[in-house]
Amino acid sequence: MRSKTAPASIYDLNLDRVPANFQPLTPLTFLRRAALAWPDVTAIIHGSRRFSYAQFYARSRQLASALSGLDLGRGDTVSALLSNTPAMLEAHHGVPMAGCVLNALNTRLDAPAVAFMLDHSEAKVLIVDREFAPCAAAALRLAQVKPQVILYDDSEFPQSGVLDGSLDYESFVAGGDPDFDWLMPADEWDAISLNYTSGTTGNPKGVVCHHRGAALMGYGNTLACRISERPVYLWTLPMFHCNGWCFPWTLALLAGTHVCLRWTRPADMYAAIAEHKVTHLCGAPTVMSMLLNATATEKRAFRQRINFIHAAAPPPEAMLLAMLQAGFDLTHVYGLTETYGPATVNEWRPEWNALPEKDRGAKRIRQGVPYSALEALAVLDPATMQPVPADGQSLGEVMFRGNIVMKGYLKNPPATQDAMEGGWFHSGDLGVMHPDGYIQLKDRSKDIIISGGENISSIEVENTLYRHPAVLFAAVVAKPDEKWGETPCAFVEKKSGFESVSETDLIQFCRDNLAHFNCPRRLIFGDLPKTTTGKIQKFRLREQARGL
Amino acid sequence: MRSKTAPASIYDLNLDRVPANFQPLTPLTFLRRAALAWPDVTAIIHGSRRFSYAQFYARSRQLASALSGLDLGRGDTVSALLSNTPAMLEAHHGVPMAGCVLNALNTRLDAPAVAFMLDHSEAKVLIVDREFAPCAAAALRLAQVKPQVILYDDSEFPQSGVLDGSLDYESFVAGGDPDFDWLMPADEWDAISLNYTSGTTGNPKGVVCHHRGAALMGYGNTLACRISERPVYLWTLPMFHCNGWCFPWTLALLAGTHVCLRWTRPADMYAAIAEHKVTHLCGAPTVMSMLLNATATEKRAFRQRINFIHAAAPPPEAMLLAMLQAGFDLTHVYGLTETYGPATVNEWRPEWNALPEKDRGAKRIRQGVPYSALEALAVLDPATMQPVPADGQSLGEVMFRGNIVMKGYLKNPPATQDAMEGGWFHSGDLGVMHPDGYIQLKDRSKDIIISGGENISSIEVENTLYRHPAVLFAAVVAKPDEKWGETPCAFVEKKSGFESVSETDLIQFCRDNLAHFNCPRRLIFGDLPKTTTGKIQKFRLREQARGL
Repeated sequence: MRSKTAPASIYDLNLDRVPANFQPLTPLTFLRRAALAWPDVTAIIHGSRRFSYAQFYARSRQLASALSGLDLGRGDTVSALLSNTPAMLEAHHGVPMAGCVLNALNTRLDAPAVAFMLDHSEAKVLIVDREFAPCAAAALRLAQVKPQVILYDDSEFPQSGVLDGSLDYESFVAGGDPDFDWLMPADEWDAISLNYTSGTTGNPKGVVCHHRGAALMGYGNTLACRISERPVYLWTLPMFHCNGWCFPWTLALLAGTHVCLRWTRPADMYAAIAEHKVTHLCGAPTVMSMLLNATATEKRAFRQRINFIHAAAPPPEAMLLAMLQAGFDLTHVYGLTETYGPATVNEWRPEWNALPEKDRGAKRIRQGVPYSALEALAVLDPATMQPVPADGQSLGEVMFRGNIVMKGYLKNPPATQDAMEGGWFHSGDLGVMHPDGYIQLKDRSKDIIISGGENISSIEVENTLYRHPAVLFAAVVAKPDEKWGETPCAFVEKKSGFESVSETDLIQFCRDNLAHFNCPRRLIFGDLPKTTTGKIQKFRLREQARGL
Repeated sequence: MRSKTAPASIYDLNLDRVPANFQPLTPLTFLRRAALAWPDVTAIIHGSRRFSYAQFYARSRQLASALSGLDLGRGDTVSALLSNTPAMLEAHHGVPMAGCVLNALNTRLDAPAVAFMLDHSEAKVLIVDREFAPCAAAALRLAQVKPQVILYDDSEFPQSGVLDGSLDYESFVAGGDPDFDWLMPADEWDAISLNYTSGTTGNPKGVVCHHRGAALMGYGNTLACRISERPVYLWTLPMFHCNGWCFPWTLALLAGTHVCLRWTRPADMYAAIAEHKVTHLCGAPTVMSMLLNATATEKRAFRQRINFIHAAAPPPEAMLLAMLQAGFDLTHVYGLTETYGPATVNEWRPEWNALPEKDRGAKRIRQGVPYSALEALAVLDPATMQPVPADGQSLGEVMFRGNIVMKGYLKNPPATQDAMEGGWFHSGDLGVMHPDGYIQLKDRSKDIIISGGENISSIEVENTLYRHPAVLFAAVVAKPDEKWGETPCAFVEKKSGFESVSETDLIQFCRDNLAHFNCPRRLIFGDLPKTTTGKIQKFRLREQARGL
């Protein structure tokens, strides 16, 4: 569609924005509303502790009040090094209620990375869980900024770390006013969060999200995940990852219950599923394989429907089928930190259930159509910015346009400009557009393998490997080659019980199922390096392949 | 909460709105998305006709294209005198896709009223159903404007009216381009619709709604009515009434099916419920009583859950209980044309199901808490603009603030300013705030009866009357009185079979259940005058009472 500016009409005269009819969109009003309508509903479960929505709102206001007491206000950064605990949920509401910006840090980062982020974001406050105190202490020695440190002591799962000069989180919150008159954003374009992307080269980039997008993600998630009744949500996805895809805010729309989980372990997950009647969880393929490969003593029976919302790398078809057989519903979403987490959803058409298993699997691995909150999605040739043919074959770059795209990268105008060029956000992911308008990822730009002039999708080769019963994890990267430029090189982690399966067996399996030029020339067995969020670290494997 | 403008922070620099990250909010993208994700799902059922989402979107684009072909564009008014037919649904999307503003007219208006609205809105096009051609012809003779008339011929339910110089709707649409590159609003504050309120004195006021609010209502309705799976929606609420409370747009979010209904008749409603497996409908208490009082041959059994979303006048408790017994779920919402329809919802707390019937009834008739899309709701003393005590007793004016409040009244700055004064939209409805934060209406300002210095809520007296088995409809108005100023006067429509119940019986029933001063002094039997949407026309009864 077009957009056009036109002269004023009768509908433009004396019909202006005033406070009665125009307020900034923000997810903060969702929590206030939940506390009003459902004060006694359990908002948070953490070990043996329970917080109602009235308590959750009061504690978030106390946190906001206490931060204001430190003279923090609009646009000040509050960094948090926390696991999936009540403090992290309170930070998602209390920090922006003080006008501040929440910078949730990956708890697996090393001290120099944390120091860089504290400096780059000009952090005024750092909230740290005792578990991560050693890293924080080292980072603070390296950093130029001197944020006020607040130490969170998890009474349910006591940790031992200490930090000099820190305040105690509970005392800090207790000092705040539970009736604090919190700050609405001055503008819905104001920042609500800052999330650093784990770039594989150079310094991380700081993705700035705004209140408008966070509020719209609340609605978008609710629709994409078909949540209507009060959900019970299990926290396996780290909240430092795209603000837990915005679920800390989303759940307030329907007074959902957050089930915290300090450590993502199979027995703990099944216990929560059985005891708290979990209905939704988000996770990477690694969480799926933990659930599927749990031992009989770890597993627990459940009768409720559970919607597993999966994203990150497109999961192998075999794993998806196993999840369905284990009684989970699946919602496949896709996005980036720059799009607040998911911005597309594989809207499942009921008629696809009647397809043969293989065709059904081919439908399942597609990333789908835009979220209702995303205005446009396209696969474009980045050189011409024209759509590639919708033939399911022609490769282009996946691009997004709309209100759930970040403000930009903090203090990085060139990167922001590059990312937003030509009216679209450039994802860096390569994909195809199917004739029915569903997109499918083929690879990250940097993961594509170019062999003898042919583009080889590492994902396609991986999906083939995953169909073999011996394969637990697979990753395919480019190996430099004098003749072909590059050739595919596979790294495979085998399931136990399949020790006898050989490199030749798996390469032969690929030859039986793929065009010859797509097949890996080398195949290496071993444990694959993964990020905290379960993504396989291909850059490490690429280094390894280079040395083979 | 407060809002505060502060100096620029690092989050304000080089992080501007650009097309990639900022697009106008509009419900028009919902239909495009539905046509993409669910092209073959049935969007509209009308008699024996079916339109898929692909067809619905294509036809809406054709309509937009054809309107553009008449040289219409941004800010031009397209009026529609249509019943709940596919053409009316197409108008809700196609008219704004041409940049125009949809002015849906009440089909029961008389010609002078229609002429006033055509002139006041400067209508460029008038789409008319043959059924209403006589009224339109008379109105066009009276009006100053000369809109192009387009006549809709309902092939399923043929009507005979004709209009000179009119185009045929189907030919007009067929002349448009199904791939038309439709207009996004230049700004989300652009008008999408104009709805005239049926004022009881003076000229009607034109309520202007914007794209931003219409989009947010889509999300708000979905959440308030707990719609997650694909709904099947029965049209009993006229679409000319607050744009059918925005459901023509809402349903596109989840590819719901619209079941059109030219005439709201019990047998037709039950047939649709049984045959199309209706899951949702909106309606006034009159629709409820039609369903409840249908004859055995009109009624049809159904097994699905049906959510009846009721608004307008607070319905009598007895009717609500009967609906629940008949197998309907209930969602009680409240709002005004100025708030796009519903802006509050009585969020039902499960623990209330355990209350004694009378207490449960008292909870049911409350109007509730704000919609998720409404930023604030209050009961204020209009003189001081301070909240009344939240004691369930102190009367104040219900006021709204947020993004689902209209732009204002067209060409009426004084009325707009009055309505928006002090940062709140003044509803003109009197209510109380309960200690738990739920509001309850007591009366329209003009409906309150002041007797010997006491405020009498006409609604309270009506609710008491409705508890009597003989009462089908009841309305209580003020009758001027020399001694008391005013006294309550009741008008009652009796159910058949209760002919022997007398005026004295019902007044005695009131005395047994109400404080003495609240009881009607006079009680008149007869049919009550009602508007198209089922509201009892109290201004007529007030005139009648004055003459008694």
